[in-house]
Amino acid sequence: MAKARPCVITLTTDFGTQDGNVGVMKGVILGLNPKASIVDLSHDVPPQDIAEAAYVLRRAYGYFPHGTIHVVVVDPGVGSERRAIAVEAPHSFLVAPDNGVLTYVLQELQDDGHEIRVVSLTNTAYWLPQVSNVFHGRDIFSPVAAHLSLGADIGALGQEIHDAITLPPARLELLPGHIIGQVAHIDHFGNLLTNIPASQVLSLGDSMTTRVAEREIRGLSKTFSQRKPRELIAYIDSSGHLAIASVNASAQELLNSHVGQMVEVTADQAMSIHREAS
Amino acid sequence: MAKARPCVITLTTDFGTQDGNVGVMKGVILGLNPKASIVDLSHDVPPQDIAEAAYVLRRAYGYFPHGTIHVVVVDPGVGSERRAIAVEAPHSFLVAPDNGVLTYVLQELQDDGHEIRVVSLTNTAYWLPQVSNVFHGRDIFSPVAAHLSLGADIGALGQEIHDAITLPPARLELLPGHIIGQVAHIDHFGNLLTNIPASQVLSLGDSMTTRVAEREIRGLSKTFSQRKPRELIAYIDSSGHLAIASVNASAQELLNSHVGQMVEVTADQAMSIHREAS
Amino acid sequence: MAKARPCVITLTTDFGTQDGNVGVMKGVILGLNPKASIVDLSHDVPPQDIAEAAYVLRRAYGYFPHGTIHVVVVDPGVGSERRAIAVEAPHSFLVAPDNGVLTYVLQELQDDGHEIRVVSLTNTAYWLPQVSNVFHGRDIFSPVAAHLSLGADIGALGQEIHDAITLPPARLELLPGHIIGQVAHIDHFGNLLTNIPASQVLSLGDSMTTRVAEREIRGLSKTFSQRKPRELIAYIDSSGHLAIASVNASAQELLNSHVGQMVEVTADQAMSIHREAS
Repeated sequence: MAKARPCVITLTTDFGTQDGNVGVMKGVILGLNPKASIVDLSHDVPPQDIAEAAYVLRRAYGYFPHGTIHVVVVDPGVGSERRAIAVEAPHSFLVAPDNGVLTYVLQELQDDGHEIRVVSLTNTAYWLPQVSNVFHGRDIFSPVAAHLSLGADIGALGQEIHDAITLPPARLELLPGHIIGQVAHIDHFGNLLTNIPASQVLSLGDSMTTRVAEREIRGLSKTFSQRKPRELIAYIDSSGHLAIASVNASAQELLNSHVGQMVEVTADQAMSIHREAS
Repeated sequence: MAKARPCVITLTTDFGTQDGNVGVMKGVILGLNPKASIVDLSHDVPPQDIAEAAYVLRRAYGYFPHGTIHVVVVDPGVGSERRAIAVEAPHSFLVAPDNGVLTYVLQELQDDGHEIRVVSLTNTAYWLPQVSNVFHGRDIFSPVAAHLSLGADIGALGQEIHDAITLPPARLELLPGHIIGQVAHIDHFGNLLTNIPASQVLSLGDSMTTRVAEREIRGLSKTFSQRKPRELIAYIDSSGHLAIASVNASAQELLNSHVGQMVEVTADQAMSIHREAS
Repeated sequence: MAKARPCVITLTTDFGTQDGNVGVMKGVILGLNPKASIVDLSHDVPPQDIAEAAYVLRRAYGYFPHGTIHVVVVDPGVGSERRAIAVEAPHSFLVAPDNGVLTYVLQELQDDGHEIRVVSLTNTAYWLPQVSNVFHGRDIFSPVAAHLSLGADIGALGQEIHDAITLPPARLELLPGHIIGQVAHIDHFGNLLTNIPASQVLSLGDSMTTRVAEREIRGLSKTFSQRKPRELIAYIDSSGHLAIASVNASAQELLNSHVGQMVEVTADQAMSIHREAS
């Protein structure tokens, strides 16, 4: 067996934490590489919500050390003919079912000009000896991640592929003085995190208005403490995208919001033109 | 003090994660053995639900490396005269109150012909200096586990006993062409995991019917993706037992199920005989 | 870069565990010190509840090994002019926003006669290169904690200060034969943990009565198993304070209790005097 060595492995699943299944994945990993440092990203991804897991991973992966292995198991097709994949990127490895759950990370890596290599996991020598039909997180993804952490070459895990499944892109329209995007994630505080990049928002100039759920929010706030409790604010979130919060309260509850909800941003000048035109 | 050395220690409790008590147990362990790798199995065991904790541990323990120490603290009798125990098995150690919470693991070990040694924890030299009446997880079980991870001999922890408390067996009747078992656990997805072994189900032949909550499910599914959303399926779960799911939904909600609910499986041939007889 | 070395770092936040933000903090820490052992105290602190986080940390910190670094991020003022601080105590380090979240630990350290040193975090060399307005847990507190774990001198992090913000003291009145305190925390089991020290309760003598929510509880129980299910008991909790439980049930639900609720304890002799006087 390869020599144990330090490596960070992250886990993102929709397993919850009540059944012990996440612990079992850690047991499998530590059995192969006792020096792995295993970090939970989230196990509260809504059941079978591939886009949500893809979002959580995209926000997080850039903050992990070189060589980190990210394992994502949101896997409604487990046991079917869906492929399992591993990805080698310049900075990290990814291990997941081939169902689009890596979409946003792979897009970002490709947008940044990084070369990646994707293989279909077919070499059973890197799996547990017995593979159940319903828990590949334990039987395939965890041992594959552990072997990668021990220095296994990704090419040994299976054949390279070039047709990994991707999710359809979220709506994002960049018009002159006008951006249309959507709520990409609702966080623990009920803040609405959108897919609208800060750079686009800032290009509208100092004076802009955000519209969501038939409410208007003027300008951008730098902190949560500038306004009154429950007031709606727009701000740039920690991943560099537009977000909407209700100060010390839940914007989701206030606006009855949901992922996918339309969010519009307009330059105030553009708005007045729009009003003159109507 | 004994030299720090790598070892996996798992924790299973009904403490939840909001109060910091699980963190405190980890602090005690790491203070004694800084090289311990501590893995959470579950802290969401329903309060005082000994059988549920016993079930979670039984499903998980086989996937941990040799020498792993499993600590279980679901302990309604804490501070009373109930004993605390440690168990040495060929593959692992177990540390828990003597209230039956190790029942299913010990049964499986004994069914597999393994010899085990059980001691009553009485040697206070392995405990924290001050022991509260209400938090033996912190004051007794964590330091005992840490000392085991450092190489302490189990015989030093207390007297060997042969009358550890066990839970009553769950209902499981194996009749010709007919099995009666029960729901043993309901998982995060609302799947109903039963105590009926796959080997028994498969012995009924290719054509069988599962009955639960006055519903009938024909045959076994290999994956969740073969059927329509919300359809009920029977399948073999990742621990090798019969389970019932509602595709992309919660069987528990659909059937208003609970742990202990009766589940029947019949060979379809046997069924028709049964019908002729009635 | 300083050499990686083992150190325990604890995290207490109101971030929840669904968004990956706690995982991101761990990624930042492990990127700087791969040998850090990171322990979650709680991420379920109610949003912006500074007093609750202060309470969780105070109960826990004494059980961690020498040199442990405790990071607390409950931070409604993030991005505003509020300071960020680090504290060096004889036994441990603390890293947090300067909003009172360390109050109870610092009080206890000072009551015990320990000298502490507090610095305002201003040296950006110990932060991530880019600092968002809304996630100092990632950009400031995690890297500062990691640098402390690597041996950075606290004096290098910023200027020493002597005016760290503290929370107002909780109500605690010690009268002859009569104590008035309050519910300081409600735990996972619905037990009411008060701010009344065991030493004060025991000074009232063997016969005392606890009053909460217009209910009277006679005497102290040593365990939960001495009484009938749902019966109310008073006991000394694992941190050495008076607590109220409903056996195998939730005192919070039974009494509709809340943090801050008044709790009175009287010596029974004092009570009868009181009754004669009325």
